[in-house]
Amino acid sequence: MSGIPMERPELGEDETAVLSGLADRVRELVEATVLTSVDSAEVAAVAAEVEALTARLAAERRDAPPFVPSSERRMDRQIGNPVTGALNPVAPPVELTVSSDGIVRGEFTLSPVYEGPPSYVHGGVSAMVLDQVLGMAAAASGTPGMTATLETRYRRPTPLGVPLSVEAKASRVEGRKVYASGTISGPDGRVTVEATAMFIMPQRFVPHS
Amino acid sequence: MSGIPMERPELGEDETAVLSGLADRVRELVEATVLTSVDSAEVAAVAAEVEALTARLAAERRDAPPFVPSSERRMDRQIGNPVTGALNPVAPPVELTVSSDGIVRGEFTLSPVYEGPPSYVHGGVSAMVLDQVLGMAAAASGTPGMTATLETRYRRPTPLGVPLSVEAKASRVEGRKVYASGTISGPDGRVTVEATAMFIMPQRFVPHS
Repeated sequence: MSGIPMERPELGEDETAVLSGLADRVRELVEATVLTSVDSAEVAAVAAEVEALTARLAAERRDAPPFVPSSERRMDRQIGNPVTGALNPVAPPVELTVSSDGIVRGEFTLSPVYEGPPSYVHGGVSAMVLDQVLGMAAAASGTPGMTATLETRYRRPTPLGVPLSVEAKASRVEGRKVYASGTISGPDGRVTVEATAMFIMPQRFVPHS
Repeated sequence: MSGIPMERPELGEDETAVLSGLADRVRELVEATVLTSVDSAEVAAVAAEVEALTARLAAERRDAPPFVPSSERRMDRQIGNPVTGALNPVAPPVELTVSSDGIVRGEFTLSPVYEGPPSYVHGGVSAMVLDQVLGMAAAASGTPGMTATLETRYRRPTPLGVPLSVEAKASRVEGRKVYASGTISGPDGRVTVEATAMFIMPQRFVPHS
């Protein structure tokens, strides 16, 4: 329906590094945009320059975000992912690793760009991060799937501007369904948000038996 | 803990318009960053220019996103909100209205910047949008609060690049708790994601009786 292709070009290492560097700079520009208090004439002048840079990048564009090749170091080929993608300026990004016992872990810090209640992380942003991390835990169990249900419980406010930890693990697999749970914790180690989710592997990905 | 102030300056109409224009241009730059396939030398050159623009905006910066004055036309003072904020380039943004019967509605389209499974909206992004819209429905009932629980059920994939509808309504209030539910629907009117949530009004906001 959307005309977005399923197949994607795979970036090489050099191209990945250069594009990730651009995404880092754009992420900084996003934060500067939300927080700037320079005068309106300067804001308008910067906006015009941003428009010109967009035109330069859009001179050759893909229909969808590229992927990177699978490797042991990377959990995820989707380098344009809005939570973990180094290529995506809206992603904090949350960098994840998976241990041999299947636990997915990451550390991240959220700027005021992700504010909900004044001085705290937006509850929806926490839910977005947990959906991604629980989904990675499901994939790490060997049963990647699409989210079917996500339940998020907020124990206390999650602070902005300090290191946060996230971790998740798949708890059980039933055919094409996989269940996972996880948490976000503040710098004091106390859990701020916990989540459980169920993912379902699309029928087309089920191995023939 | 984070040192982010609770009180915020209120932007005037002209300043709001100019900053929203900048955010629109940066939102376009974000999409161009995720999709560009220009050569690496050009990517690096653009990145250097973005860095210079960030420095210009950061010459005077606030510690936290500004607010706009309350008005009948606006539901939300948080113009830097990561879901609905016109000032925030990571927000799609989702523009919401509230009807006299307390139903909050909005329309929005998500670019490939918000992709999860190839060609579909990231499940966490849908959860983020629903948290915001259900929270606005809670506030519209007269009981604004912070998210305590959010349950999201995914009925079918949500497509990118086409108009989506979101709506929510508060169902009941019990003291400081308010319950709300809502949905995201595709252009064919079929519900793709549904959610229920419970919000709790912080003690400090409870009117003295």
